[in-house]
Amino acid sequence: MLIRVINPNTTEFMTRLIGRSARLAAGPGTRVEAVTPAMGPASIESHYDEALSVPGILREIAAGEADGAAGYVIACFGDPGVDAAREVATGPVLGIAEAAMRAAATLGRAFSVVTTLERTRGRAWELVDRYGLRSVCRGVRACEIAVLELEADPSAPARILAECRAARDHDGADVIVLGCAGMADLCTSLSADLEIPVIDGVSVATAMVAGLAGLGLRTSGRGEYAPPPAKPYTGPLRTFAV
Amino acid sequence: MLIRVINPNTTEFMTRLIGRSARLAAGPGTRVEAVTPAMGPASIESHYDEALSVPGILREIAAGEADGAAGYVIACFGDPGVDAAREVATGPVLGIAEAAMRAAATLGRAFSVVTTLERTRGRAWELVDRYGLRSVCRGVRACEIAVLELEADPSAPARILAECRAARDHDGADVIVLGCAGMADLCTSLSADLEIPVIDGVSVATAMVAGLAGLGLRTSGRGEYAPPPAKPYTGPLRTFAV
Amino acid sequence: MLIRVINPNTTEFMTRLIGRSARLAAGPGTRVEAVTPAMGPASIESHYDEALSVPGILREIAAGEADGAAGYVIACFGDPGVDAAREVATGPVLGIAEAAMRAAATLGRAFSVVTTLERTRGRAWELVDRYGLRSVCRGVRACEIAVLELEADPSAPARILAECRAARDHDGADVIVLGCAGMADLCTSLSADLEIPVIDGVSVATAMVAGLAGLGLRTSGRGEYAPPPAKPYTGPLRTFAV
Amino acid sequence: MLIRVINPNTTEFMTRLIGRSARLAAGPGTRVEAVTPAMGPASIESHYDEALSVPGILREIAAGEADGAAGYVIACFGDPGVDAAREVATGPVLGIAEAAMRAAATLGRAFSVVTTLERTRGRAWELVDRYGLRSVCRGVRACEIAVLELEADPSAPARILAECRAARDHDGADVIVLGCAGMADLCTSLSADLEIPVIDGVSVATAMVAGLAGLGLRTSGRGEYAPPPAKPYTGPLRTFAV
Amino acid sequence: MLIRVINPNTTEFMTRLIGRSARLAAGPGTRVEAVTPAMGPASIESHYDEALSVPGILREIAAGEADGAAGYVIACFGDPGVDAAREVATGPVLGIAEAAMRAAATLGRAFSVVTTLERTRGRAWELVDRYGLRSVCRGVRACEIAVLELEADPSAPARILAECRAARDHDGADVIVLGCAGMADLCTSLSADLEIPVIDGVSVATAMVAGLAGLGLRTSGRGEYAPPPAKPYTGPLRTFAV
Amino acid sequence: MLIRVINPNTTEFMTRLIGRSARLAAGPGTRVEAVTPAMGPASIESHYDEALSVPGILREIAAGEADGAAGYVIACFGDPGVDAAREVATGPVLGIAEAAMRAAATLGRAFSVVTTLERTRGRAWELVDRYGLRSVCRGVRACEIAVLELEADPSAPARILAECRAARDHDGADVIVLGCAGMADLCTSLSADLEIPVIDGVSVATAMVAGLAGLGLRTSGRGEYAPPPAKPYTGPLRTFAV
Repeated sequence: MLIRVINPNTTEFMTRLIGRSARLAAGPGTRVEAVTPAMGPASIESHYDEALSVPGILREIAAGEADGAAGYVIACFGDPGVDAAREVATGPVLGIAEAAMRAAATLGRAFSVVTTLERTRGRAWELVDRYGLRSVCRGVRACEIAVLELEADPSAPARILAECRAARDHDGADVIVLGCAGMADLCTSLSADLEIPVIDGVSVATAMVAGLAGLGLRTSGRGEYAPPPAKPYTGPLRTFAV
Repeated sequence: MLIRVINPNTTEFMTRLIGRSARLAAGPGTRVEAVTPAMGPASIESHYDEALSVPGILREIAAGEADGAAGYVIACFGDPGVDAAREVATGPVLGIAEAAMRAAATLGRAFSVVTTLERTRGRAWELVDRYGLRSVCRGVRACEIAVLELEADPSAPARILAECRAARDHDGADVIVLGCAGMADLCTSLSADLEIPVIDGVSVATAMVAGLAGLGLRTSGRGEYAPPPAKPYTGPLRTFAV
Repeated sequence: MLIRVINPNTTEFMTRLIGRSARLAAGPGTRVEAVTPAMGPASIESHYDEALSVPGILREIAAGEADGAAGYVIACFGDPGVDAAREVATGPVLGIAEAAMRAAATLGRAFSVVTTLERTRGRAWELVDRYGLRSVCRGVRACEIAVLELEADPSAPARILAECRAARDHDGADVIVLGCAGMADLCTSLSADLEIPVIDGVSVATAMVAGLAGLGLRTSGRGEYAPPPAKPYTGPLRTFAV
Repeated sequence: MLIRVINPNTTEFMTRLIGRSARLAAGPGTRVEAVTPAMGPASIESHYDEALSVPGILREIAAGEADGAAGYVIACFGDPGVDAAREVATGPVLGIAEAAMRAAATLGRAFSVVTTLERTRGRAWELVDRYGLRSVCRGVRACEIAVLELEADPSAPARILAECRAARDHDGADVIVLGCAGMADLCTSLSADLEIPVIDGVSVATAMVAGLAGLGLRTSGRGEYAPPPAKPYTGPLRTFAV
Repeated sequence: MLIRVINPNTTEFMTRLIGRSARLAAGPGTRVEAVTPAMGPASIESHYDEALSVPGILREIAAGEADGAAGYVIACFGDPGVDAAREVATGPVLGIAEAAMRAAATLGRAFSVVTTLERTRGRAWELVDRYGLRSVCRGVRACEIAVLELEADPSAPARILAECRAARDHDGADVIVLGCAGMADLCTSLSADLEIPVIDGVSVATAMVAGLAGLGLRTSGRGEYAPPPAKPYTGPLRTFAV
Repeated sequence: MLIRVINPNTTEFMTRLIGRSARLAAGPGTRVEAVTPAMGPASIESHYDEALSVPGILREIAAGEADGAAGYVIACFGDPGVDAAREVATGPVLGIAEAAMRAAATLGRAFSVVTTLERTRGRAWELVDRYGLRSVCRGVRACEIAVLELEADPSAPARILAECRAARDHDGADVIVLGCAGMADLCTSLSADLEIPVIDGVSVATAMVAGLAGLGLRTSGRGEYAPPPAKPYTGPLRTFAV
């Protein structure tokens, strides 16, 4: 069984980090392919970046379909392009925010998200509402570290831990959701420090897609997720015609 | 890894049916133990039945903790006792309604529940709201077959199929959620007939608990799911003192 | 007219306290019987305690039906077992949280709940949502006094008053709802000190049940509150078969 | 104890009808005074009528304060002027829609409103939302009988019964709320015919105001219901200066 | 094209201020008539004031209909009488809270209201909910300046600016909505100081009514906004019979 | 003042149709430029189409900024790319669904949307929720005519009228919102036939953007709509680097 894990930005070292988390989460007998799109932004920190990441994601879904992928993970916490991806994918497609927040709601009664930049908090709340979890979410906290500095900045782990602690002690969160795929490798140590569950969306999404696909479940091919009607596409996007 | 799947009613053949579904869903290396409580109702078809199923469920959680269970499935669509169970369980605890409805929300944009008796529809809607899925749920349909007649009544499969079809064609559901653990063995044939995903909560809950527990995730031990304060219990329930 | 007021825990002095409040609230011509269940926890401070209080409550409803009770009050702020009780009771059944919070919404525009332990706050919010009062409720504050220490701890009244004052002055509450039956006897003095209405659920629930029953209103016997289907019950709960 | 029941329209025979229901609902020792405003519309069937009924209602509240009234019922299903009335009243003030709908939510899981004209349905839904009862309300049905024809039209009882039956059988309502004070005298016979609770807001509001006032509870004098700031009023309304 | 801008209170200098803002907002070819009702309160600072402002507003709508007005602005932030006004007006009717808050939701993701007295905050939140904007509104802040002192009190501009700044910096508002028609002339300087959009409802409502009316759009004459049924009115309000 | 009206698909005749509506709506002194993107789908009928229309829209916003445009209309009923566009635009940006639905909520109490294909209904409901209008929207009806056939198919006007009539008579809509920019030229005749307001989003959005921009209001440059952080873009999208 092949699961394609798509890093929606074009930065290779994030793809490697994401691939590592996903592979640990996939059970034996599941192959994980972590891929980097051929077009799009180096990181996703605005609605603009997010919108422009979607064409590259959709290319990777198309490639996955050609390879017979059983399911997909979209590894950015804004869950970009999930609806469009589900129209073209046969198997399940999960964004990491959806997977992490839904899982958090089963492990506690009150989660908080700890994310990168203040300006992405609105999108996180929008997803909280989309997934119907407003009454379970205590807060969305930003540590004001840019996505690509999470690896480079030596102060990052301590600042993230401080926000998680504030979420636990001030917001009353009993579960933490990490708000960026680039935080995946901190998950274990944060959980040990905080003594509450800390959820990395990449792992959880991979495990859930593997679980659903393993049961033979697929994205519905009727109604809103039916394949898109065929039609011409123009300009640099003309190759997207389905 | 041991997952304890609890049939909240006291009817053995339902335990066997549930155990079969759960075992198929658990990956290799995961052991499933399907158990029947020593006290409670023969089936769950009212708030009264549901309330009286909880002590038996909590006994099975306690026994599971003694055995080192990694997680639990509560295999009744009313998700009875889930909050109390999470206070005493170390690993994840999933009710089958929660698991099935959250999964349905990722495979389509509009699910309907097909359940047994009309009178349980209110509880199903209550859970839809609890899990924040009101905008995704198109309807809850009852086929008016009592829980224990699902196996015995030869007309059951056709009547359930008819309700599923109505859900798809009249409600616009693109995914079906089966509203009773006793329908688990119909899942594959219904899905083939309907050509949309049909979700059995027992399988999905088992796969999700296995997935979460496999990542080392546990129910939060802080806040509302912290262990209950010790105190005396009286009468036939005195053995429940923690 | 007989109203049965059920203390869901097994502690006799709380039953006496509750009975006192209820009797003052019942008009002339209404007899109040305050009862203690024969099984269950000594106090209710967790989902676990709450779930295990329900069988005892349902026994007391059954006994009330045998005695021709006109209505019932369930005197714990978690409103345990209310749905199940309504299936078996002929007359109205009110939990004290429902009664107090609905009344509060008519006397002001913004109430806060002052309750016992932090860990019960989640259940209080859940009930706020169940009763549709999220936009009227300003907060749920805990004074961190265990239920059975409310009487014994000489510092309790001052600590409760302090939380009420904070609710009024910081949350902007114009009405206070007491979040535990054990606080009933503080109601008058708190109201005098705070100069805003302070609501004890036991009194209000008793007055409302008396009012509804006096008008000849009963719990609906159709739909979801119809009597539960008869069936076998097993083990220590076998006597609950209806 | 004096309860002032205000008929918000200027039609005397409706005042008499309302007074009869209220007196039956008030316990012994409670005096009911049913009054007709000196200004306003002959019946309330639009937002326009409703807005113009409020000055007359507020005059009656002021007169009640002068008489030492312990509480008030505003006997029109649109609950006109309730917020303004609470600012000037010392005791509790209940509109009949609020009282009836909150009571319905405790006697069943699903009520429908049966009201007069189609054009008032929007206001009824608005009140359903204001009181947080959207998930309990199954429908608002109009029988298209004008308010002042309820008494005169001999077909009225049968048409109202037909709508109630449709509410029970098609909407799944297990409780009926009568959507006009002018229907009060049909309550008993409807309930006998339908075999589910039928709620007349005048009775229930009177019983609740009596119950709350009997416990010494008053409208909060702080925050939003504090007395309005004194200031000049001009023209025909100059006598409303507080 | 004539737009009638109604100052719901009876204070002339506020009518002049409102008229100035409205005239600046109306495009060329649109005539603005700012009017003061002949009855009602000198300012609106309570539910009581608001209710008693409505008859005067409705007189001004009737006069506007006689004059062939193309649309109306109701220039008080409580949006008094909007529903009743729409029943009698042919053209569009906008309250300034509705206009300002809907506009704010298109210019940013998070607005706060800065208003006069603390006691009016509840009404503002009620309107936020009525217009479906709860998830966009970060707060409603009061500067505790009475409506008629906004002009007279030399400290008013600085205190309003301070609250706006707090809304921006503490609530995270990216747009400010001014919560009183009397603040209209501060709009430009506040916006310059704060460097975020500051919205005066009088201007925006006037521009929107002009825009809608210019497209030939009118208030719907069917359903809930159909003209009110004719009937007698009594007492000082007898001239309101339609 | 220049308003740039962007047709998000690449079909020129739709751009001309949209331009005509917009020009009629813009007041004197406002110049409308209707543009067709250089890349993207020929029509938008799926999440996939919608996602792939956004890069082309963002190019047109960038070009508009270079030209000093005062505001923008995005003329597709899915409101594609609105958040991203607001990050890069100085002036107001309105999607036609947002403009039409917000206007509808001021002209009646109950609107229905009449749109093209069944499969786009989910997106329309999603926008209803995003704009907080769930309680005002009675339905979203599809006439099953593909976007590009609206012009060509001679049966289109009659089928659209039939759905509008069903919305008015069965859903109780008192205002109709046209769910596709391609229906703009039917607006007047539909309104005449139906005798209720019919709203074309292109006109209303243009009038609103002109109104807001005319008052000097701009999209907030703080918080979530601040300009996106600069960074590299890769592949065919590399020219999107800001």
